[in-house]
Amino acid sequence: MTEVKSWTTRRDAKRERLAHAGSLLDGKFAQTEDVVALLEHLIKPGDKVVLEGDNQKQASFLSQALVRVDQARVHDLHMIMSSVSRPEHLDLFEKGIAKKLDFSFAGPQSTRISQMISDHKLEVGDIHTYLELFARLFIDLIPNVVLVAADKVDRDGNLYTGFNTEETPTIVEAAAFKDGIVIVQANEIVDKVPRVDIPADWVDVVIPADEPYQLEALFTRDPQNITELQILMGMMAIRGIYEKHNVQSVNHGIGFNTAAIELLLPTYGEKLGLKGKIVPNWELNPTPTLIPAIESGWVKSIHSFGGEVGMEKYIAARPDVFFVGPDGTMRSNRALGQVAGQYAVDMFIGSTLQIDQFGNSSTVTSGRLSGFGGAPNMGSNPTGRRHSTPAWQSLRPAGDPLGKGQKLVVQMVETFGANKKPVFVDHLDAEEVQKEAGLANVPVMIYSEDTTHIVTEEGIAYLYKTDSMAERKAAIEAIAGVTPMGLRSNAQQLADLRARGIVALPEDLGVKRGQAKRSLLAAQSLQDIVEWSKGLYNPPAKFRSWS
Amino acid sequence: MTEVKSWTTRRDAKRERLAHAGSLLDGKFAQTEDVVALLEHLIKPGDKVVLEGDNQKQASFLSQALVRVDQARVHDLHMIMSSVSRPEHLDLFEKGIAKKLDFSFAGPQSTRISQMISDHKLEVGDIHTYLELFARLFIDLIPNVVLVAADKVDRDGNLYTGFNTEETPTIVEAAAFKDGIVIVQANEIVDKVPRVDIPADWVDVVIPADEPYQLEALFTRDPQNITELQILMGMMAIRGIYEKHNVQSVNHGIGFNTAAIELLLPTYGEKLGLKGKIVPNWELNPTPTLIPAIESGWVKSIHSFGGEVGMEKYIAARPDVFFVGPDGTMRSNRALGQVAGQYAVDMFIGSTLQIDQFGNSSTVTSGRLSGFGGAPNMGSNPTGRRHSTPAWQSLRPAGDPLGKGQKLVVQMVETFGANKKPVFVDHLDAEEVQKEAGLANVPVMIYSEDTTHIVTEEGIAYLYKTDSMAERKAAIEAIAGVTPMGLRSNAQQLADLRARGIVALPEDLGVKRGQAKRSLLAAQSLQDIVEWSKGLYNPPAKFRSWS
Repeated sequence: MTEVKSWTTRRDAKRERLAHAGSLLDGKFAQTEDVVALLEHLIKPGDKVVLEGDNQKQASFLSQALVRVDQARVHDLHMIMSSVSRPEHLDLFEKGIAKKLDFSFAGPQSTRISQMISDHKLEVGDIHTYLELFARLFIDLIPNVVLVAADKVDRDGNLYTGFNTEETPTIVEAAAFKDGIVIVQANEIVDKVPRVDIPADWVDVVIPADEPYQLEALFTRDPQNITELQILMGMMAIRGIYEKHNVQSVNHGIGFNTAAIELLLPTYGEKLGLKGKIVPNWELNPTPTLIPAIESGWVKSIHSFGGEVGMEKYIAARPDVFFVGPDGTMRSNRALGQVAGQYAVDMFIGSTLQIDQFGNSSTVTSGRLSGFGGAPNMGSNPTGRRHSTPAWQSLRPAGDPLGKGQKLVVQMVETFGANKKPVFVDHLDAEEVQKEAGLANVPVMIYSEDTTHIVTEEGIAYLYKTDSMAERKAAIEAIAGVTPMGLRSNAQQLADLRARGIVALPEDLGVKRGQAKRSLLAAQSLQDIVEWSKGLYNPPAKFRSWS
Repeated sequence: MTEVKSWTTRRDAKRERLAHAGSLLDGKFAQTEDVVALLEHLIKPGDKVVLEGDNQKQASFLSQALVRVDQARVHDLHMIMSSVSRPEHLDLFEKGIAKKLDFSFAGPQSTRISQMISDHKLEVGDIHTYLELFARLFIDLIPNVVLVAADKVDRDGNLYTGFNTEETPTIVEAAAFKDGIVIVQANEIVDKVPRVDIPADWVDVVIPADEPYQLEALFTRDPQNITELQILMGMMAIRGIYEKHNVQSVNHGIGFNTAAIELLLPTYGEKLGLKGKIVPNWELNPTPTLIPAIESGWVKSIHSFGGEVGMEKYIAARPDVFFVGPDGTMRSNRALGQVAGQYAVDMFIGSTLQIDQFGNSSTVTSGRLSGFGGAPNMGSNPTGRRHSTPAWQSLRPAGDPLGKGQKLVVQMVETFGANKKPVFVDHLDAEEVQKEAGLANVPVMIYSEDTTHIVTEEGIAYLYKTDSMAERKAAIEAIAGVTPMGLRSNAQQLADLRARGIVALPEDLGVKRGQAKRSLLAAQSLQDIVEWSKGLYNPPAKFRSWS
């Protein structure tokens, strides 16, 4: 007797689970109050479960329900989450509902996650960039269940995610076409969605949430907190990098350093005659500090990973700049945005918490396992790139007939961090964290080999011009100020590095320190930005210091 | 008087064009016979136009129409095409309808495109990998018009692309959310599509095609053409790479070399006891030569860039393995597949036409500018990768505390090509082509720095173990056979390289040359594969040599 192999085990399991939950379902729709029972019927021990935690938008109704399931019925889950953001994301592990975690970013939970790993309460699969985590959903982390959030859902189950599309279509696709179960929490059930972001055919279960999904304004930086040191660094970056390399397309990391640059373009950049010459094309969350540059005509296009609270009306009124649908609302897309940030932009510029003597950097510090989100992806040189742009080509090494260009990867830091500790350190804390957490490799965010420039308040190190590790170290020391590492530099070394164009001080770039004043910013407060936006930008309450 | 700036120029232009074409449209639908007039109304001189040419599926009705427009009305287009496959794709440039081209692959048109560039009949923007071309659609190549192909379209304009989804959703998204015009040729208009692959909200114009879109079976390799040398190389690769490095996930390039490996897994691999131990997870077009391995239980999952003619029924019956929708048909996705092939697999293994003395390789040869498709993307080491797997980690250099793993990138070639010319050359023809075509860089497909292994009928060079360029050259010479490059190697050099594990000959791997017989293949013909598939695989007529 030959045993007949089944090729439909996933499909059969899905059908069985949905049948089991049948009494809780009216077509695809479930009742809000049945959410815990529903998850108990649809999720089995050991399942790979993708729980949508973008860094902004959270499937918070579903995560709060998942932590309430009966641990005797649902346990040992393998959670896959791009962002571990909410307390219950880790409560799942405390309660034994989940066992293993693959993730990308753990900003708000970075201390607790670090402790839980030390205490063996949580088994880490690995830390990823967003893009590689999404990629694995189609290869070796194929989900059994995905839990996602939508703004509006119509009676057929078509999803509208609007503005905050983020990663939802990508994670839904991985489940919908591999007999995974797609469960959606909806802010609202409507007769007709403004547009379809994800077709109903891809969706199994819709459940109205008790309250709208959590959404954080993570990319808003209030200009009133930008310091004159940051302005000085911004001026240097504009002259010594944007202008020098003819940068046309860029991704800015989150932070006050890059916010300063955004607010200097319409003032300082304009005086330099750079308008129309640099950075027309952006991959970026819609950060309010870019509004003055947009209004001044600096920006031709912005594609976004996600939305930003308060920017809805402004974006809707600027469809020439943003990706806006026929319905008048932006569509974001985290997977495609990360691909664009990796492969299609001239430059990534961001910040970090520590840089070591070789130029490796990390935001992982003692007791904090934050992950990196998209930074390693965008802050690396994709060696598969085959198209050329002037900025990329400007980093081509001389003398190699088979040479090619390189992406500009810029780290911009003050020599001492907010905690008064040196950013420049001989060894990254990440080296200790590797041991404590038992990681396969040191959690480096951006490697030295990918880092082409470092900007501090002292000057710019053009690392791509160095031709040995010793020279690279000297260049970093030269701009490391009065940190212990910086004190190793001496006048002769500095003079030599300046003469060879490996290090530039403000005066080498024609940047006057005395001009680095807050008055040089195109906006000095969020209220100024509201004015620039002609009242279209609507800051969240926590950022409103005025009536 | 202040001039009021418009922020809706793209939206207004789109509205105006669609209004202009209004007499040809009934809602979103146009008549087949009006296609040329329709394109003349909707496309303007200088537009960026994405014309869907996947390497398999072609928007052939629309491309044939575009070449018939009045050049006085539509001219100087900037064409963006992942694949230049059909004669009219280049006729557009001969006629002056188009002027500039950004592309990825030009297999069937590679000779003509090379000549046209020399004759200045065509201005090349650049040659890209698929993924970077898609990425630029969101940054600096935002389309005004996209022309795509769908299988079925319902009365609302929802698209079903089925099996051959490929790049359609990605290129449609770039236009639909930036006020570009999305024009779709449909094989069939139906009341209800089997599933929605692209929502109607994203689509502007649908036109029934006069005949179904062109579709080529590009990934089918008939086992009867696999040689014993290829079988020998396949055996070496299985022992010396797949087994040695514990490879779990892989992308195979197209060709008889990798087809041989696929057909050796259920025979040779089984004898070695490797079943269940290696390559459960694949990113791959659904190639028929993998059927015996699937049927033998080697393969847990396959995600695909596109479909393959004849594989429809087989895939539909194997949803545990392939990505199949609730409707029972596969969904492919070229953009996500390329991301997975870049970031989520242990190994890329493919072939090439030339390898230089340093290990750089290219398929661009004199007079042929073929482009590279996805090979440079998948055949490169993504330095942004942060997760670890045993295979990746096995290439980690010793002694560097901040070290990390590397993707396996394997080139597998016979020392002499089909044209009897050496594959191993001191200098790539691509160096000449760069000059002739005025390209910014030499069109290298895979750089030496990314290449970790080369397999020939002589042996395997473990390039990742070399620690100088001189040693790398010696390792390549040692496996380059009787090519002029290979003749530079000598017995002592070879003995030294073998002793240090940098080169392995068949005997070093326990591979017996005498076993490399066609009878070792799990299938020796496509007919055998049909049998393996239990009659579910249906080879295209051109591959049917029987009944």
